[in-house]
Amino acid sequence: MAQRQFDLDDVERLAADALARANAAPHQAAPVARSTRLAERDGIRSHGLMYVPVYAEHLRCGKVLGDAVPEVSRPRPGVVRVDAAHGFAHAGIDAGWPDFVAAVREQGIAALTLHRSYNCGVLGHHAARLAEDGLLGLCFTNAPASIAPTGGKRPVVGTNPFALAVPDGAGGALLVIDQSASAVAKSEIIMRARQGEAIPPDWALDAAGNPTEDPQAALAGSMRPAGGQKGFGAGLMVEIFAAVLAGANLGLDASPFSGPNGGPPGTGQVFIGIDPSGFSGDAFGPAMTRLADSITSQEGTRLPGARRAINRARIEAEGVTVPQDLLDRIAAA
Amino acid sequence: MAQRQFDLDDVERLAADALARANAAPHQAAPVARSTRLAERDGIRSHGLMYVPVYAEHLRCGKVLGDAVPEVSRPRPGVVRVDAAHGFAHAGIDAGWPDFVAAVREQGIAALTLHRSYNCGVLGHHAARLAEDGLLGLCFTNAPASIAPTGGKRPVVGTNPFALAVPDGAGGALLVIDQSASAVAKSEIIMRARQGEAIPPDWALDAAGNPTEDPQAALAGSMRPAGGQKGFGAGLMVEIFAAVLAGANLGLDASPFSGPNGGPPGTGQVFIGIDPSGFSGDAFGPAMTRLADSITSQEGTRLPGARRAINRARIEAEGVTVPQDLLDRIAAA
Repeated sequence: MAQRQFDLDDVERLAADALARANAAPHQAAPVARSTRLAERDGIRSHGLMYVPVYAEHLRCGKVLGDAVPEVSRPRPGVVRVDAAHGFAHAGIDAGWPDFVAAVREQGIAALTLHRSYNCGVLGHHAARLAEDGLLGLCFTNAPASIAPTGGKRPVVGTNPFALAVPDGAGGALLVIDQSASAVAKSEIIMRARQGEAIPPDWALDAAGNPTEDPQAALAGSMRPAGGQKGFGAGLMVEIFAAVLAGANLGLDASPFSGPNGGPPGTGQVFIGIDPSGFSGDAFGPAMTRLADSITSQEGTRLPGARRAINRARIEAEGVTVPQDLLDRIAAA
Repeated sequence: MAQRQFDLDDVERLAADALARANAAPHQAAPVARSTRLAERDGIRSHGLMYVPVYAEHLRCGKVLGDAVPEVSRPRPGVVRVDAAHGFAHAGIDAGWPDFVAAVREQGIAALTLHRSYNCGVLGHHAARLAEDGLLGLCFTNAPASIAPTGGKRPVVGTNPFALAVPDGAGGALLVIDQSASAVAKSEIIMRARQGEAIPPDWALDAAGNPTEDPQAALAGSMRPAGGQKGFGAGLMVEIFAAVLAGANLGLDASPFSGPNGGPPGTGQVFIGIDPSGFSGDAFGPAMTRLADSITSQEGTRLPGARRAINRARIEAEGVTVPQDLLDRIAAA
C-alpha cells in the first residue's frame, strides 16, 4: 500500500489546511491541528490524522461551527466558564486558558468548564498541558451515552474518561493517567463490526442487557464498564462534572461523535487545576518521585502514560508514516 | 447469643464514653463518636461500634494522640490545610471545616487537606456532609499500601477510595459514590483468613504476583484492583491527592490501620468542595435530576448510596442490635 513519510510539522500543516478548507476560522483550526500533531506524536493514531476527515465533515454539516467565538466568564474567583458556542472544544479551552492558569496560581485550585462544546480529542493532553505549567491537572469530558447502570439495559453515561497529569518539575509531565470508564474503547467494537469479527463476551451487552459476542448487537446495546459497578461509578462521576456541573448536554441528550446527524453534540469538559506549591510545597516533588520510583523499580511495570512517552521519543525523531488512502481522504474532506 | 437493642443516641454515647476512657479529649472523641453513629445508621457495621475497640487500642498505644490539637492554615484563598497532629482525622476535619466551606462558597471551588492524619472512617460521610451544605464533595483518603502496579508484585498504593456526593437541593445527598480501588474490601480477605476459607482467584495476588485462593498468601501479597489497570489508576490518583498533595505519608510508609505496632500511620485526606451555584447555577438541579432518573427508571438498578439510604430509614426507626460480646469488648477497651 502506498504511503508517505511526514514529520510532525507536516502533520500539523496538513490538518490545519484541511480544517481551513472546511471553513474553520484560524482560532478554531489552529488548536485542533496542534492536537492532531500531539496525537500523532504520541502514537495515538485514532485521534491523529485519521480524525481530520471527521472534523472536516462536522464543520461542513454544522455539527461544529467553524466561526464560533468562545465566550469566557468568571462567575467566581476560582471558576472560569467557557461557552464554546458549538465550535471545537480546543478553541474554547484556549480562550479560557490564561484566566484559568492565573486562577489556579492565585487560588491554589481552580476550575475551567466548557459547555456547548465538542469532544476534546486526547484528554490526557489537556491534563499534560497543566503539568507543563507546573500544575496538577484533573480533567473530565463526557460523551454520548453508551454505558448502562449496573443491572440496567439503557445507556446513561458515555465512555467518559478522566485524566490526571502530574508535573515533573522540569516543564513536563511525570505521569499521565488517562482512562475511560468502559472495559474497552468503543472504537475497538466499531472496528470488529466493520471486519465482521466477534468480540469477547466481557466487552459489551446487547439491548436486552445480556453479554454478547456480536459487535452489531453490542453497538445497539451498551458498553461494559471496567471493573463492573466501580467503572460505572467512575463514568457517573465524570458525567456529573463534565455535563451537570459544566452546564453541558448530558450524554443522554448528546448527538453522536460520528456521522453527520443530530446537530452539535453540545457535550462538556471540566478541568481542575491545582498548584502544588500552595499545598505540600517543597515536599511535593520528592514524595511524587518516591511514589513513581516504587512503580518503575518493579520489573514489568510502567508509569501511566509511559507508552505514549516512548512513542513520542521515537516519532519525534522518525516522523510518521501516513497511508496514501488517508491522505486522499484528507485531500477530499 | 446475648444481644441488646440500642438507638442511635445510645450508640453515639457508648462510643464517646469508650473513647473518653481511653483518654481522648472531647474535641477528639466527639466527632469519632458521631461517625460511629453515622456508620451504624447506614448499616456499615465494620465502621460502627465494631471499630470502637480499635480506636481505643490506638489511643492507648499512641497510634492516635487523644490530646492532639489540629492546626489550620490557609496558604492560598482556595486551600485550607490541616495538620491533624496525629489525632483522629475527624477532629482535624472539624477544625478546618468552617474555613473550608466558606472558601468553597467564596471561590466556587476549594480544597481541604489533612496530613499527620489517620483513617477517616466512611469516606462517603464526609462527602455527604458537603452535600448537606448544598455543595458537591469529591473526597480522597489514602491507606497503607496493599495494591501492586499492573505487572508488578509489591504493593505501592492502598485500597484508596474516592467518594463523590451530590446535593439534592433539600439539605441532603441525592447520591453518594464511595468506592475503593480494590476488587473487594481487604476486610473480606481478613475474614476468610480467620475462618480458614478460600478466596476467589480474582481477589488477590500472592507475594510472587500470582493469583491465589489462599487468604494468608493474599495478605502477604497484594489486593487486585477493580478493573485491572484502571483500578490501579484510580488508586494512584487518590494516592497523589491524599498523600503527595496533602503532604501526608505515602501508603508505602504508613503503619497498618490495625494492630498496635508502627506508631501513627500519618496518612492523609484531600476533600474538594464545589459550589454548583458558581458553575451551572439553576441548571444544575434539573440536569442532575434527569441523570438520576435515567438510572432509577430502569428496573434492577439503583443510585450509588441507595442501599445506605434504605438502611438509614430502617435503622433510624428500629435502632441497632449489638451483640453482648461486642459490648463486653467495648467496656474492656
